[in-house]
Amino acid sequence: MITAIDHVGIAVPDLDAAVEQYGRAFGIEPAFRERVEDQGVEEALFEVGGSFIQLVSPLGPDTPVGRFLEKRGPGIHHIGYRVTSVAETLATFKAEGVRLIDEEPRIGSMGNTIAFVHPKGMSGVLVELVEER
Amino acid sequence: MITAIDHVGIAVPDLDAAVEQYGRAFGIEPAFRERVEDQGVEEALFEVGGSFIQLVSPLGPDTPVGRFLEKRGPGIHHIGYRVTSVAETLATFKAEGVRLIDEEPRIGSMGNTIAFVHPKGMSGVLVELVEER
Repeated sequence: MITAIDHVGIAVPDLDAAVEQYGRAFGIEPAFRERVEDQGVEEALFEVGGSFIQLVSPLGPDTPVGRFLEKRGPGIHHIGYRVTSVAETLATFKAEGVRLIDEEPRIGSMGNTIAFVHPKGMSGVLVELVEER
Repeated sequence: MITAIDHVGIAVPDLDAAVEQYGRAFGIEPAFRERVEDQGVEEALFEVGGSFIQLVSPLGPDTPVGRFLEKRGPGIHHIGYRVTSVAETLATFKAEGVRLIDEEPRIGSMGNTIAFVHPKGMSGVLVELVEER
């Protein structure tokens, strides 16, 4: 079951500059900052009303977010939907024929259980399913 | 002050098909459906945890969302951030030199007070400020 918009992931080339921009505009400070080596990103997360604005910068050009920036420039990269169970949601998606990136749940940032769903299955939106740790 | 992610706006060519897709995948039904003539869109909104997934289809090709679909295809169109006061947030943004689309608050869907912020001012993201009615 989907319970919330967990986060919006925004690809930015310069994390410090973007953190400063969002901080000045909205008067907020990041709740977390983390390098996720296996996704090739560094992230800063602002908590707003139980959801997160996640600014994501690539650790190098030859990473998924690096290639996204090269192709499309800064902007919204993905949406994270919070669900009660990533495994159950993946099972439903498989039964419905929704195209997946991750066939099985895995561990993502902040130790959450996650899985990515292919944009083709979700109206052109890269979707991350998030089950909180 | 920013208090929540109000909604994510997802541009889709066929609203009925997208509503059905999201409904089947997540087992949810739209809370609202509305034509907003002055924005040239029809919208369906799913409520999840106090935020909304807003599917947006254009009323014709020569509308902002129609041109977005023509240029980029289906996908995330904008993020709505809920704020306590659109007028106060706009005043802060003007003071910070953030580039705006709407210089003044106006009435948007569901009777909320809104204003759009230019993507150039927000790391490539089209941002809608939303003050609930």
